[in-house]
Amino acid sequence: MKKLLIFLWMITVAGNVIAQQNKIIEASMDKVKLKFMLDPEGRACYAVSFAGKAVIANSHLGIDLLNDTAFDQQLEIIKTETTQVDEQWHPVWGELSTIRNKYEQLVVQLRQKNSPNRLINIIFRVFEDGLGFRYEFPKQPGLRYFIVSDERTEFHLTGDHKTFWIPADYDTNEYKYTTSKLTEVDSWKVTKAATDIAVRVAPDQQGVQTPLMMKSADGLYINIHEAALQDYSAMQLHVDKNTFNLTVSLVPDAVGNKAYLVAPCKTPWRTILVSDHAADLLASKTILNLNEPSVIENTSWIKPMKFVGVWWEMQTGKSTWSYANRSDTLNAKGQLIPNGTHGANTANVKRYIDFAAAHGVQGVLVEGWNIGWEDWFGNWKEKVFDFVKAYPDYDVDEVTAYAASKGVKMIMHNETSGAATDYERQLDTAYRFMNKFGFPAVKTGYVGKIIPRGEHHDGQWMVDHYIRVLEKAAEHQVMVDVHEAVRPTGLHRTYPNFMASEAGRGNEYNAFSDGNPPEHETILPFTRLMGGPMDYTPGIFKLKGYSSVSGRQVHTTLAKQLALYVTLYSPVQMVADQVENYDAHMDAFQFIKDVPVDWDDTKIVEAEPGDYITIARKEKGKDNWFLGAVTDENARKTKIGLNFLDKGRKYVATVYADAEYADWQENPEAYTIHQYIVTSVTKLKLNLAKGGGAAVSFMPFVKGVGTFKKYK
Amino acid sequence: MKKLLIFLWMITVAGNVIAQQNKIIEASMDKVKLKFMLDPEGRACYAVSFAGKAVIANSHLGIDLLNDTAFDQQLEIIKTETTQVDEQWHPVWGELSTIRNKYEQLVVQLRQKNSPNRLINIIFRVFEDGLGFRYEFPKQPGLRYFIVSDERTEFHLTGDHKTFWIPADYDTNEYKYTTSKLTEVDSWKVTKAATDIAVRVAPDQQGVQTPLMMKSADGLYINIHEAALQDYSAMQLHVDKNTFNLTVSLVPDAVGNKAYLVAPCKTPWRTILVSDHAADLLASKTILNLNEPSVIENTSWIKPMKFVGVWWEMQTGKSTWSYANRSDTLNAKGQLIPNGTHGANTANVKRYIDFAAAHGVQGVLVEGWNIGWEDWFGNWKEKVFDFVKAYPDYDVDEVTAYAASKGVKMIMHNETSGAATDYERQLDTAYRFMNKFGFPAVKTGYVGKIIPRGEHHDGQWMVDHYIRVLEKAAEHQVMVDVHEAVRPTGLHRTYPNFMASEAGRGNEYNAFSDGNPPEHETILPFTRLMGGPMDYTPGIFKLKGYSSVSGRQVHTTLAKQLALYVTLYSPVQMVADQVENYDAHMDAFQFIKDVPVDWDDTKIVEAEPGDYITIARKEKGKDNWFLGAVTDENARKTKIGLNFLDKGRKYVATVYADAEYADWQENPEAYTIHQYIVTSVTKLKLNLAKGGGAAVSFMPFVKGVGTFKKYK
Repeated sequence: MKKLLIFLWMITVAGNVIAQQNKIIEASMDKVKLKFMLDPEGRACYAVSFAGKAVIANSHLGIDLLNDTAFDQQLEIIKTETTQVDEQWHPVWGELSTIRNKYEQLVVQLRQKNSPNRLINIIFRVFEDGLGFRYEFPKQPGLRYFIVSDERTEFHLTGDHKTFWIPADYDTNEYKYTTSKLTEVDSWKVTKAATDIAVRVAPDQQGVQTPLMMKSADGLYINIHEAALQDYSAMQLHVDKNTFNLTVSLVPDAVGNKAYLVAPCKTPWRTILVSDHAADLLASKTILNLNEPSVIENTSWIKPMKFVGVWWEMQTGKSTWSYANRSDTLNAKGQLIPNGTHGANTANVKRYIDFAAAHGVQGVLVEGWNIGWEDWFGNWKEKVFDFVKAYPDYDVDEVTAYAASKGVKMIMHNETSGAATDYERQLDTAYRFMNKFGFPAVKTGYVGKIIPRGEHHDGQWMVDHYIRVLEKAAEHQVMVDVHEAVRPTGLHRTYPNFMASEAGRGNEYNAFSDGNPPEHETILPFTRLMGGPMDYTPGIFKLKGYSSVSGRQVHTTLAKQLALYVTLYSPVQMVADQVENYDAHMDAFQFIKDVPVDWDDTKIVEAEPGDYITIARKEKGKDNWFLGAVTDENARKTKIGLNFLDKGRKYVATVYADAEYADWQENPEAYTIHQYIVTSVTKLKLNLAKGGGAAVSFMPFVKGVGTFKKYK
Repeated sequence: MKKLLIFLWMITVAGNVIAQQNKIIEASMDKVKLKFMLDPEGRACYAVSFAGKAVIANSHLGIDLLNDTAFDQQLEIIKTETTQVDEQWHPVWGELSTIRNKYEQLVVQLRQKNSPNRLINIIFRVFEDGLGFRYEFPKQPGLRYFIVSDERTEFHLTGDHKTFWIPADYDTNEYKYTTSKLTEVDSWKVTKAATDIAVRVAPDQQGVQTPLMMKSADGLYINIHEAALQDYSAMQLHVDKNTFNLTVSLVPDAVGNKAYLVAPCKTPWRTILVSDHAADLLASKTILNLNEPSVIENTSWIKPMKFVGVWWEMQTGKSTWSYANRSDTLNAKGQLIPNGTHGANTANVKRYIDFAAAHGVQGVLVEGWNIGWEDWFGNWKEKVFDFVKAYPDYDVDEVTAYAASKGVKMIMHNETSGAATDYERQLDTAYRFMNKFGFPAVKTGYVGKIIPRGEHHDGQWMVDHYIRVLEKAAEHQVMVDVHEAVRPTGLHRTYPNFMASEAGRGNEYNAFSDGNPPEHETILPFTRLMGGPMDYTPGIFKLKGYSSVSGRQVHTTLAKQLALYVTLYSPVQMVADQVENYDAHMDAFQFIKDVPVDWDDTKIVEAEPGDYITIARKEKGKDNWFLGAVTDENARKTKIGLNFLDKGRKYVATVYADAEYADWQENPEAYTIHQYIVTSVTKLKLNLAKGGGAAVSFMPFVKGVGTFKKYK
C-alpha cells in the first residue's frame, strides 16, 4: 500500500493530570463519544456512546502478568494526550482506491501506584463509526520480557442484544452462525452438534468468537472485534448473562499462557464499531485503518485474480486428493498403488487450464498434487507432506509449461495438516520451488490439530506463524490465501500479499456436510468479513445432484452464487465449480467473466444482518459498476436506486436474476438474464427468490453496439 | 561405519507355542540368562540372572495406548523365535577399530486375547554382558497411528543396591551424582539444592535418570539404560522403595502424551548390563551393538579432532559472550554499545588460531560470535539468535582466511537458547553458511526452556529434533557436538557425525559453580558415558585463581586433567583452558599434543565406580598406547601390568604424575614428568594424589633417539 498521502491536520493537547485522578477524560468523533476514568480502586474504565445512546457502559481495562504484579488496579494517571488525525491512503487492492483515516486519539499514560510502579499506556482512537483501543507497554526499567496470563478488558453492553455468534473455539471458525439473544448463548450446544467440524475445542460454554455482531433493542448495530493481531493470541469473549458484560479471554498456549511480550510493545486493538445503520458497519474501514501501513515496499507483483481449480470435484467426492488408498501398501516395485480417482493428474489439470485460458480466468489451483495425501488427516503427525514432490501422474514441468503457453498462472497448494513446525522447516524449499516454476500465489491450509502439540490455530505461536509465512512469501513475491487460520484483523494492510483467508464456514460445507443455511451469506459480511477478505469459493452452478449423499445441495439459487462475487469481497475469487458445469450455463457464466476482483469504489446499498445485503462496486480503473443482492431463506422484492452511476450517463445493465419460480430448495438453477439501458435515476426492481439473489453489471452504453430496451 | 563384515553363524529355532502359554522361554549367552513367560493374567514377564544370581526378578512388560486397549495383560503367545548372531563391524571412530556383536535373540510374538486382538512383539537380545529388549508393533489392520500414554516396563531388582543416580529431570542431566542405597533416593532434595542449574523439572521425587549404575551386595555391577532412542521420549525410572521395583516413566510432551507412533515400528531398546567385574561394563559395546548401522554412506569427511576455543574465558567471567550489555539500548547510530569485554573478537580469536597451529590442535571453537547474546537466556523467547550474522568486532571472512592459512579448522557455534523451532527455521541457512566458510563441525546448545513451549529436552519432539539436526548436518557434511540435549543412547553408530554430546555435568561447573567433586569423573564413565562420548572439556591447567569468586577451583590435580583425555572417551576433545595457561606448562601440555582422539584398542585396566578408573588405549593406526588413571577424593597407589603392550617390544613411557605433595585442594598444579623404558612385563607403579590422576604415553622405543632409564 502506498504511504500516507495527505496529512491534513494534527493537533495535540497534552495535560498533566496527576492531580485530577478522578476526572473523566473524553474523546469523540461525530456521534461516537468515549469516556475514560479511573475508578476509586484505581482501575482503568471506559464507556462509549453513539448519538447519546449508551453502547458500552462503564467497563474495566487491565492486563495480568504471570507471576508478577498486574496492571488491573491501583493505577494513577501520569499524563493524557489528545491528537486529531485526518489522512488518506491507497490500498494496493481493495473495495476502495482511497481510504480516509480520520480519528481523535487519546493516550492515557498510567503508572502502578505501588512498587514496582510500572508503566502502561492505553491508546484510544475514536472514529465516526466506532473506536479502537490498545495497551502499550513503554520501555521502562524492570519490564522487558513478560508473560500475559490474562487480559481484563470488558465490553459492558447495555442490554440483551440480538447477537450473531459462533462458539469461542480455539481452533476453528467454521460454525454456522446462531442468531439469539446474548442470554441465550450456549456454545456447547453448537459445538456438540457440529459434527462436520473435525477439531472442536471450545471450553467456555458462554464463550463467543469475534467479530461479534449485535443489534440493540434501540436500533444500534454494534460489532466487536480486534485489529492488527500480531505477537498476541486471538481475543474471544465470555458472556456474563446476568450483566451483559463481555470479558476478553485469550486463546492459551500449550502451558496455559496467553502471550509472551517484550517491552516496548503494543497489544492488538480492541475495536467497537457502532451505527444506527447496518450498512455503515459494512462500509467501515476502521479496522483496516488501525493496522500499520504496508511493510512491503515493492508491491507491483501483487495482483488480484480469479481462479478455477481442481477442488470442488474432490469436495463432492467425484475424485480424490490422494493418489493411492494406503500409504503403507506398495506394489512389487515399492510404489504406491494408484486408486484411479486422483484428481490432480496432468490431463485433468490441463482441462482446467484450457477453460481458464478460454474465459480469461487468470489462475488455476491444483490441490492434491503433492505426495502425502494417503493419510494426511487426523493423525497429529509431524511429517505429512513434501511440498516439492508431485505424485507420479502429475508432471509439474509439463503442466507449468502448458499453462505458461496459454497465459495462465498456476497456484501452489501447501496443505500442512496442522503440522506448522514441519511447514516452517520446508518453507525455504517450498518457496524456492514456487519461484522456480513461476507460481504467483499459494493456498495454504491447516486442517487438523496443530503441531507444536498443545498450541492452537488461534494462539500466539500460530498467529506469529501465519505472519512468518507471509513474510517468507513476500521475500519470494508470492501471494497467500490461507485456510483454517485465525480469523483476519485487517493485517492485509500491513502485508498486502495476504490476499484472503478462509477462517469461516465456506461454500465447501455445501459439498461435504449439510451445508450453509440461506441466511449464512447475509451474516458473513457482518462477522467474518469485518476483518478481511474471505476465500468463500462462490460460483457453484450445479446446485443439486453433485453428491452421492441424498438431500445434499447448495442452499442458494444460481443467481445468488453470482451475486456473492460482489457481496463477499475478496481480491482472489475462486470460480469454484467444475468446468463442465460452467459449460452448461455459459450465458450466466458471462457475469463471472466480467466481474472484477479489485475496486475503485463501493456502496453498501442496503443491508440487514441475517436478512439481506445489496452492494454496488465500481471496477478498478474502469467505468463499469457491478451490483450483488442476496437474501436469506425469505423471498424479497427490492427497488435499487442507481444514483452511484455517473449522472447523465447511459449504462447497459445486464441483470442476472432468479427466474419467477426459482427457489433455493426446489428450483435453484432457474435464472433469467435481461439487458436494459439504465441511468443514475433508474430505480431497478429486483425480485429475489427464497435463498436467492441477483447480480447486475453496468457497462457504459456505447452507441451502435447492440440493441437494448430502456429500463422501465 | 562400515557394513557388517563377518556373519559367522545364525541358527533359527521357531516354535508354535499357542498350546504352551505358561511355559518359560529362555535365551542365554555365557553367564547371562533371560526367562520369559506370561503370568496367569496374560501379562508378559521376564527375569534375568547372571551366573545363577538373580539380577532382575520377575518383572512385567507392557505398553498403554491413549484412549485405546493396552498391551499390558490378556495377551497370548502366537509364536517364538530364537536366533544366534556373531558378527563384527568397524566403527568410523571409537574406542576400538573392530566391534564384535554376539548375541542370542528371542522374539516373542504376542496377541491380545480379546478384541481388537492386536499384535505386539517383544524382542530380546542376550549378550554375554547383559541384554536389550524392545517392543515391536507389526503392521496389522486397525493399528497404524497411535499414541503411547505409558510404558509398563519394570526392572524388578533383588535388593537395596548401592546406586549412583541423578534426578529424573525432563530437561537436564547436569546434576552431581548421589551415591546412596535405592531406598535413599530423594530427587527433590537434589533438585532443590542444585541452584547452579537454571531449568529443573523433576516432578517425581523417586525418579532417577538413566544410565543408572548400581552395585549389589553380592558383587554384581548392574547398569540400566536404553539404546537407539529415536521417535520416542527418553526413559526415566521410578523407584519403588518397598519392592526395589523400577518402573519406566517416559518424558511427557506438552499435552502429557509420551510418544506418537506409526505401525510398523519399534521402541528403543531397554538395556541391562551386568557383570561381576566393574571393568566389563566400561568395556561393553552392547548399547552400540543394539543401534543400527550407519545411515551415512560416505563417512570420509568425519574426522575426530582436538580443539581449543574462546570459551573458558567466558565461563570463568574473564570475557563475555555478548558484545553489549543491553539489546534495547543503542547508540546515536542505532548500534549496540560495546561492553569492551566481548571475547569473540577477531584479534583474540587469532591468538587461539596461532596456538592451535603451533601445537597441532586441529580446531578452534568460537562462542559468542553471532548476534543475540545480550538477552539470550531465560526469556523463553522464540527468536533469539541469527546463525549467520557476526558481531561487528568479529570478521568471519578474515578469521576464516587466517585459520585456513595456518591449516586450522574453525568450529561453528549454534546456541539455540532452547528455541528449537527457530533453529529449525534457520537450519538450511545456517548449514549453508558453514559450508561456505568450510566449517567441518558445529557445537549446538539448548540452554533454557524449550520452544515449542511445553516440550522438554528429553521428550519425543526434541529427541526427533536432535536427529533432524544430525541429518541436516550430514547432508552438509558437518560433524555435531550437541550440548544440553537428551543423554546419548549409542546413536553415534547410526549417525557417525554425532561426535559427542554434553548431557551431563561437564568441567564447566568448576568454572561457574561450586563444581564437580573429585569422584565425579570416576562415576561419569559408568553413567553418562555408557550411551556415548561426552564433550567434558578437560585440560584445565590453571586450577585455582581463575575466578573472581573466592574458593572456586577445579576439583582435580593437573595430572588428572591429563588423564581425563584417556578415561573420558570422546572423538572430539576440547583443549579447554586459555592458551596462556598452557604456555605456563608446556612440558605437561606435551601429553595433550600427543594423545589422540581415535583408537584401535581399549583395555579397561581397573575400575570401581565412585572410586577409581584406569584405562589404556592404543592409538588408531599407530603403535602408541596411552593410559589414564584417575581417583576420587582419596589418594591411591596402584601397580599397572602393561601386558597390553606388544610382547618383547620396548616402549618409552612418559609418566605425567601427581607430585609427591600434590593434592586437588591445596596443591593441584604440582606434577612430575618422568620417562622410562618399559615392556609388556613391566609393573608400573602409580601414586595418585587426592583428587589426582596419572597420564602415561607409551611410544615404541627407537634406538638412538634419546636416553632413557629402564623402569624399575
